[in-house]
Order: sequence, then C-alpha cells, then structure tokens
Amino acid sequence: MDQLKISRKRLLETIAVSAAIGATANGGLHRLALTEEDRKMREQFITWLKEANLEVRIDDFGNIYGRREGRNADGPAIALGSHLDTQPCGGKYDGVLGVLAALEVVRVLNDNQIETELPIEIINFTNEEGARFTPPMLASGGLANEFTKDYIYSRKDENGITFKEALENIGFLGEEKNRIRHVKHFIELHIEQGPILEKENKTIGIVKGIQGNNWVTVKVIGQTNHAGPTPMEHRKDALVPAAKMIIKINELTKEIDGLKTTVGKVYVKPNVTNVIPGEVEFSVDIRHEDNELRMYALERMKEQLSTIALLHDVEMDMTTDWHSDTVEFSPAVIQSIKNAADKLNYSSMELFSGPGHDAKYMASIAETGMIFIPSINGISHNEEELSLDSDIEKGANVLLQVVLDLAKALSKKQIGA
Amino acid sequence: MDQLKISRKRLLETIAVSAAIGATANGGLHRLALTEEDRKMREQFITWLKEANLEVRIDDFGNIYGRREGRNADGPAIALGSHLDTQPCGGKYDGVLGVLAALEVVRVLNDNQIETELPIEIINFTNEEGARFTPPMLASGGLANEFTKDYIYSRKDENGITFKEALENIGFLGEEKNRIRHVKHFIELHIEQGPILEKENKTIGIVKGIQGNNWVTVKVIGQTNHAGPTPMEHRKDALVPAAKMIIKINELTKEIDGLKTTVGKVYVKPNVTNVIPGEVEFSVDIRHEDNELRMYALERMKEQLSTIALLHDVEMDMTTDWHSDTVEFSPAVIQSIKNAADKLNYSSMELFSGPGHDAKYMASIAETGMIFIPSINGISHNEEELSLDSDIEKGANVLLQVVLDLAKALSKKQIGA
Repeated sequence: MDQLKISRKRLLETIAVSAAIGATANGGLHRLALTEEDRKMREQFITWLKEANLEVRIDDFGNIYGRREGRNADGPAIALGSHLDTQPCGGKYDGVLGVLAALEVVRVLNDNQIETELPIEIINFTNEEGARFTPPMLASGGLANEFTKDYIYSRKDENGITFKEALENIGFLGEEKNRIRHVKHFIELHIEQGPILEKENKTIGIVKGIQGNNWVTVKVIGQTNHAGPTPMEHRKDALVPAAKMIIKINELTKEIDGLKTTVGKVYVKPNVTNVIPGEVEFSVDIRHEDNELRMYALERMKEQLSTIALLHDVEMDMTTDWHSDTVEFSPAVIQSIKNAADKLNYSSMELFSGPGHDAKYMASIAETGMIFIPSINGISHNEEELSLDSDIEKGANVLLQVVLDLAKALSKKQIGA
Repeated sequence: MDQLKISRKRLLETIAVSAAIGATANGGLHRLALTEEDRKMREQFITWLKEANLEVRIDDFGNIYGRREGRNADGPAIALGSHLDTQPCGGKYDGVLGVLAALEVVRVLNDNQIETELPIEIINFTNEEGARFTPPMLASGGLANEFTKDYIYSRKDENGITFKEALENIGFLGEEKNRIRHVKHFIELHIEQGPILEKENKTIGIVKGIQGNNWVTVKVIGQTNHAGPTPMEHRKDALVPAAKMIIKINELTKEIDGLKTTVGKVYVKPNVTNVIPGEVEFSVDIRHEDNELRMYALERMKEQLSTIALLHDVEMDMTTDWHSDTVEFSPAVIQSIKNAADKLNYSSMELFSGPGHDAKYMASIAETGMIFIPSINGISHNEEELSLDSDIEKGANVLLQVVLDLAKALSKKQIGA
C-alpha cells in the first residue's frame, strides 16, 4: 500500500476551517482551552468525526475520541492525535495539525475501504497548552495518572473559574468510563516549533523523546526605597543582582553542552519608575535530554545565584515549580516512522523534542512516538507560526503509513475484497 | 523672639487627626488626590484655617490657601505649605508635615498676637504625588505655568476620570482669580525621604535645591520563540541584553561621582515561563545635581546600551519621557534657615533634594527654600515611613523662625503693645 496517499487539498481545507475559529487579525489563532472558541471547534470536530463514521466519546477531562473499529474489536487501539487549543495569539498549526491529520488518515482509510486488525482512535486532548489552566498537558496527564482528578478539576484560570466549571460551561464534561484504556500505540504528528529541521534541510523529524525540564522560580528580596534621595551605596536594589543572575543563567549553557536555559517571566515590585525595586521574581526553564546533566546544571545554578545574592546582600529563594524527566519514545514506533519516511523518499533525521507534548504522558500508557515537520524560522507560540503545505502533506503521509503499519492494515486479499 | 516655640503637643495632635483620614491597617495613609478621603481631609483643613482666623480661598486647580494679613496688606506674601495627598499605602508625614506645621506656625503667631509686615499664606497643593493623576506636582506646576490649564484639566486617572471632573466631584473647583500671585518667598518643610540626615546625625537639612532628573524608557526588541526547541545559538532573547544594560546603567554611577541611576520598572513580553522574551521595556531614572554631568551620563548610557544591543543583534530604542533641570533655591531663604537652626542650636547640614516637591515649581514664581527633617531608615512612599516627634518639633520651630524673619515680625514696641 505504498502508493496510498492523503488528500493534500482536503487536509488543507480542513485546517483552514479550524484556522477561522478564533482567528486573529494577524493570521494567528487565539483559542484558549474550554472557551467559546474551543467549544465551536470541538462541535465542528465532532461533526467531522461523525461524518467519518467514527464512534464519538467524551471523557471526564473533556478529551474527545473518535473510534474506528478494527477487525479485532477487543484488540488494543492505535491512538493518534494532539490538541485543538492554542496559546494566546498562537499559530494555526500547533496541535491542530496532529488532530486534523489523524482525521485525514481515517478519511483515507474509509475512502479506500481499508480494514485494520486493531481499532484506531483519534484523540483531541483538552488544555495541552496550559495557557488557560496550568500546568500544560493537564488532560493527557490525567489519563496517565500524572495528576489526580481532584487536582485537575480544581485548577483555576485567571478569573477564578475552575477546570471543571469550564468543562460544564461549554457542555464537555464527559464520563470517566470513556477514557481510552486499552491502547497499544500513540502517534502524534506535530510541527517542530524549532529551527533544526529547516536548518538541516530535512522534511521529517523522527522524535526520539522529549527533553526533561525543570521550571524554577527565583525570588530576590532587597529593599524598596525612593530613587531620588537614596544614595547608591545605601541601596538594596533587588533588580541589579537579579540582572546578574539572568546573565549567569544564560552563560551556564556555555559550560554544559546541550543545555538550554530560559528566563521567560519577570516581575518587579513595586515596578514604579522612581522606586528602587524591593523584590524581583523570575522564572527559569532548564532543559537537557540527559537527566543527570540537567540536575547538575540546576545545582550549579543554585551555587552561582547564591553567590550573587551574597555579594549583593539580598535574600534569594529558589523553588522548583515543576519538573519532568526525559521521556524516551518507543523503538518500535521510531522504526516505523523511519521506514515510512524512507519508503516515501522523504529526507529525515532523529531529534529530541524540546517542548512537552501530550505524547509525553501517553508514553506512560502506550508505546509512543512523534513525527515532526519543519517550522519556518523555528517560530511557534506566535501568530507568525508557519509550516509549508508540502511539508504538512508529507507529514500526514508518514502518519498514514505508520498507522497502516501499526494498526496492521489488512490487504484486499486478507479482507476478501 | 528667639524664645518663641511651636506647641509640640498641638502639632502632633493635628498630625494625628490627619493620620486617621485614609488610615491603612499597617499605620500608613492611603489618601489619593481628590478622592473622598482627600475631600474629608480638605474639609478638616479648612475648618482649622477658619478657626485660626485665616481667609480661605480655593483656586481653579483646587489648591487651598489660608491667608493671614500683614501690616502691609499690599506687600508680597510669604507662602508656606506642601500637600495633603499621599501615595497609595504611603506614610503619615510626606507632605502632611509641611502643611500642618505651617498651620501650627500661624497658630503660634495668633497665640502671641504677633503681627508681621508681610501677609502669610498657607498652601495645600493638589495632587503633588502624581499617584492618581500623572505627572506629579500638577497644581504647583500649573501656578508656575509649567503645565497649561487645559493639560491639567484633561489628565485622567486609571478609571478615565479627568482632573477637572474629580475636582468638581468633591466640590473643590475654585476660581482662577484665587491663585496666589503676589508672593515673595515660599518655604516648604518636608521629611527628607532619604537616609542622609540620619546617617550624618543631623536634625535639620538646609535644602540647596532639587536635583534634576531624566526619565527614560528603553525598549529592547528581540524575537519571541518557544524555549524548548530553540537552540541557544538561534535565539534573539531580548532579556539577556536588557539584563546587561541594567547592570551597565548601575555601574555608570561608579564612573560619574554623585550620579544616581535607577531601573524601577520592567515589562517583559510575553512574560511566559517557556517562551523566549521577544521584548523588554524598562524605565531609567537618572539624577545628578549638575545638569551638564547628568546630560553627559545620559549620552554615555546611550553609547553603552547601543553597544550591548549591537553585540546581541537586538534592536534598541531609547526615549526621554520627562526631564527636569536642577533647581537651585534662594540664597536668602537658605541663609534664613541656617540662621534659624543655629539660633535654636539644632545640628544642620546642606543637601540637595532627590525627589521633586511643590517647592520646585514655586521656585519659578518666588524665592524658595526647603527644610528637611530626618526619615528613619530613609524610608518613604511606604507605610513604614517614620520621623521622630522630636525632629518634627524641631523642624516646625525652624519653620517658625524663618517665617518670623522673612515675613518681618514686628516687635511689641513696633506694634505699640
């Protein structure tokens, strides 16, 4: 079935319908989890699932499933999917591609009346982005028992609305019995969100796993004072040592090969032009695919930051908000993706994913893998996010081949056609 | 009249009445300009002015005057005062001291039936703090024609209420003809709001003038990107160069003696833990009593910041939001304050004011001076703001002596007593 291909036109049209639900003026998407926009998208998605004759289920986290039965109805499912929610002013492809390409794969199977040995389930996961309810990947994390149901339900958005209330508000609070349970493989097609494939001039990224990372909050406490009268030598400005820490954290990546550090969030108090900052709080995101090196980097950072705090006579407090070890994907799925790319004659390379994905948690309940396609200029979580139509087509074709392989498509002969 | 002294008890009781109008749970004051709290304070103040037989006027900026006639009714007035509004969760003394000590001085003159050659006017200026309506010192600036009436009236608070509407709402929109016009001297007693007097162990600060300053906004533009997948060498993180700039701005004070620089306000965009900052905006407050050195510092800073931007391949934009040159106070008033402190045997020193005060603008229409008393730990614009009762008493005694001198108090013989 090497010649079987997805319909580029149909897939792009389907993506275009999604791109209109929560569209921003600058060509991006603003569709936060469980908002009115998300509800509209979910309704549209369910319509498509039903049109494809899939059996629709909604679980207690609002995850949507569309099941296509296999010849072996009791066999474990092959699951594929991603998420339809976006970052604030995010892009059209992040998450959306993986869900709608999965739909396209099923449409192709239907068009060609292809039966598979194992059932296929398409999944749209709730709140992958973590933009409305932190942490990210809340609902796939729920399936993996990474988070308890109580924890998930009690997460609040910035207006104090809980995850559970938001699910009820848009009518997507389903039942626990609808969760996916018996699943052999999970495959997620996604844009890379980084520049590596483009730089290396490769079309298909065969994802080896997801880099572990730590999220740390650093608080520096000095003393607030009026900028006018306070002599420089009398100040306990929290911002000056914080700035030195930010630079040190950046320079740590030169010490440890493959380490990535990001200070993304900074709060200054009281944040007034003529007042010396009394407190600065900032976030640190540390990533390395080697868990030991990442923990070593964290220790090094702690030492270096403590020294800066000491020299500036300010207090410093470091807390780890979240951490996750590196997840390595299934060798069987990695091999299947590699075979598909080779068969289709698409250039490919192996790489680690920097960002987390639903696949990260699914890896604890299924043999999991991911397929990446290039992101132009590596830009993502941004309205300028872009992937080429030709790469979208190729990514979906690889997904199709992997599904045919892992779900064990039956030949016409086998099904007696 | 060397032996004439203010009543410490009466002054402290008067300050205590003020401290109850807009009191915060932590012992501070929250009395923003032209709010209900400010209205209550103004009504109380007017009651006191009338009890002291002063003629009350309210001008078109809501400034309140209490006039005590001099023997020479056509002579220029000696004005004294400050402001009764506070910062959000500010202190009990900032501004309040200067107004209520002026009232105490007049009470002492009344008690002792002292006539002066020149009329005396107590002033409470509207919106000195600039906390509700920016910029600060709006109403004294109006008297000095630093701001036009249209500009002042159209300033809006964060709820969109204009200065003029706020004046009308609390019933304090007076008449232009009531502005102070014929004024020889202006004297403002104020807490230092800095640590210098305490550190030098002096009671009375003889203020030489107000340090000039510039408020500059620096914007650093890099590129937003996802922290996970973007390799360090591919990033255009705006925060790393911004941190280097903040350190450079701090170090500039080691190059130029007497220079003070403060980065008080920082905004990071999009300010998300796992997103590389695409834009950082921060404020710079630069102060030096020498105008030329301050402008030189500004140029040096621009050079240094441009170099950092260039090395990091980010854009940088620097705009001056506001600037004001150093104001030097009247030698006659400075001498009078010095004589008073000496006569009373209070330790004193000359110093410049870092923060601006209404005296800054009054200096353009009157020969002006200021008296400082120590602020414990130099803390101000804060509920912990504190000055000792004994220093309050001494500051008011100096003010009394200066008024007796400049308003030309008549001896009992002169007035035929």
